Amino acid sequence: MGPHPAVASVRLAVRRALADLPPGARVLVACSGGADSTALAAATAFEAARADWSAGAVTVDHGLQAGSAERAAAVEAFLRTLGLSPVETATVRVEGAGGPEAAARRARYAALDEVADRHDAAAVLLGHTLDDQAETVLLGLARGSGTRSLAGMSPGGAEAGRYRRPLLGLTRATTEAACTAEGLRFWSDPHNTDPAYTRSRVRHQVLPMLERELGPGVAAALARTGDLLRDDADALDEWAGEAYAKCRTPRLTGPGEGGSAVSLDVEVLAVLPAAIRRRVLRHAALAAGCPGTDLTAGHLCALDALVTDWHGQAWVEVPGDVRVTRGDGEIRLRRER
Amino acid sequence: MGPHPAVASVRLAVRRALADLPPGARVLVACSGGADSTALAAATAFEAARADWSAGAVTVDHGLQAGSAERAAAVEAFLRTLGLSPVETATVRVEGAGGPEAAARRARYAALDEVADRHDAAAVLLGHTLDDQAETVLLGLARGSGTRSLAGMSPGGAEAGRYRRPLLGLTRATTEAACTAEGLRFWSDPHNTDPAYTRSRVRHQVLPMLERELGPGVAAALARTGDLLRDDADALDEWAGEAYAKCRTPRLTGPGEGGSAVSLDVEVLAVLPAAIRRRVLRHAALAAGCPGTDLTAGHLCALDALVTDWHGQAWVEVPGDVRVTRGDGEIRLRRER
Repeated sequence: MGPHPAVASVRLAVRRALADLPPGARVLVACSGGADSTALAAATAFEAARADWSAGAVTVDHGLQAGSAERAAAVEAFLRTLGLSPVETATVRVEGAGGPEAAARRARYAALDEVADRHDAAAVLLGHTLDDQAETVLLGLARGSGTRSLAGMSPGGAEAGRYRRPLLGLTRATTEAACTAEGLRFWSDPHNTDPAYTRSRVRHQVLPMLERELGPGVAAALARTGDLLRDDADALDEWAGEAYAKCRTPRLTGPGEGGSAVSLDVEVLAVLPAAIRRRVLRHAALAAGCPGTDLTAGHLCALDALVTDWHGQAWVEVPGDVRVTRGDGEIRLRRER
Repeated sequence: MGPHPAVASVRLAVRRALADLPPGARVLVACSGGADSTALAAATAFEAARADWSAGAVTVDHGLQAGSAERAAAVEAFLRTLGLSPVETATVRVEGAGGPEAAARRARYAALDEVADRHDAAAVLLGHTLDDQAETVLLGLARGSGTRSLAGMSPGGAEAGRYRRPLLGLTRATTEAACTAEGLRFWSDPHNTDPAYTRSRVRHQVLPMLERELGPGVAAALARTGDLLRDDADALDEWAGEAYAKCRTPRLTGPGEGGSAVSLDVEVLAVLPAAIRRRVLRHAALAAGCPGTDLTAGHLCALDALVTDWHGQAWVEVPGDVRVTRGDGEIRLRRER
């Protein structure tokens, strides 16, 4: 008798995601103790034994909840029972800008990078599922900032850096079924059901309602959209990168205070498609010292008007005290202080 | 005392949308009698008198509800009180494939085209608002078929054909306030609140819930996303069009039965970004006779594997009996019967 179908699905996903790794390669699973990463850790241990990879695991203690150290110790002990080695707990401090979720993510990846570097890991596996992908796309949609913010997480792979997400094609229901079938206990993070967190509301209220009102399969449609838009965003960035190089004019270019003055040829800009011109202008604003997080669609619209709707505007200010002017057939971006 | 702010907003939107029209140009407003197109008709009558455009209106009787002819007559009479001329009712038959909403849309645009042709109209104005745009993007999202299906409706303009949507930047609440301020009665289509229609559920259940759970401004974010993605889709289509021309090889090309055989150079295809390669393959499948409505992301993925994951697959079938093979450094698409 073969394994339970859910277990087989998770194993197959791991096998496919790591098909390019040679025997002896070191793989690390990031495991929170939740169903997704628990199923991932078990499948990775199984597949590593067959393919002769060296599979270890890391659990991150964010120190955000009472008893988190004990829980990390329990997850670590469980990971050892799977035969994974090395198994480590990385204890991090969650702090800094951008809200608790962003700070926790930053701390987590920094810790995973450190462990992966120290063990020379060829791949670090993350347990994100199709449901996580759908949530990511919906959250990006609510921001309304375009293709890149809607693009889903990358599955990773041979040419995409060390992080890989083998389970992006599987649902959370599958990982839970896999854990249950193998008798693996998993932990439900109370943050995941706390309506104070936007992602938790998306998971428990928004997505179920969308499935009800728009028909089943919305989560899969969102995940597919995220995949398609990631490819679109990559292609558009490639084109915009080439266009930026062609638009740059040498005059006025040089180091400024905290950013370089940048100038762009208006004639070259004007014939670009709007989507590319907007990306070139964004690129130029960032190069001139504007912080990317503060640059809005409204700013880009005003910059674009300097090119396509020029009627003698004095200048446009963008965040980071970057002043943008038009003159002598050029758009000039320069930090003012 | 100036006009009510909502009335001023609608008028300004019309003035901006038609700024390129010369005096004497003929403009037609498509008016259902709902708040959006009623406010649009009133503002167009006002602005046309100032700018010396010749403004008329059309109302479409879809014949789908009891009393629709009487209602069309009442809308027609109201439009005449605004001083619009000519004012016509176009009576259409809603039939054919794709569901009642798609059939009604097809019949409506055919009727509007006929009237616009007969009166040599420079522009036909449609009352779609920011809320309609947000609904369109959400419905596209639920389909999960990528950038073009997420792209919102075009505002139109000088270079975009005769249809223009001056109100895409305004909310439905603004058009209703404008009607109320001017004492204009408007009609609420019962279809718009009938939960049997997906768009009605999006309007009355889905969007309000998203605003509640993800924060106010979701509709505006969705509309902005639609605008950005339309530009993205245009740029990607432009690139893909050029790439398709470069990929085509002369061999085997010629008229087939109900479509042409198409062949593409694998080496040229292979170096394209995935987003562009997928569009080129789609273009080729359509040219070979595959109906666009039946071609799924799954088919395109299988075609793409012939290029990027070639391990001797025999062939791929796509709808319309188009068989796709790889050989002699080419991808060949040919209708089989």
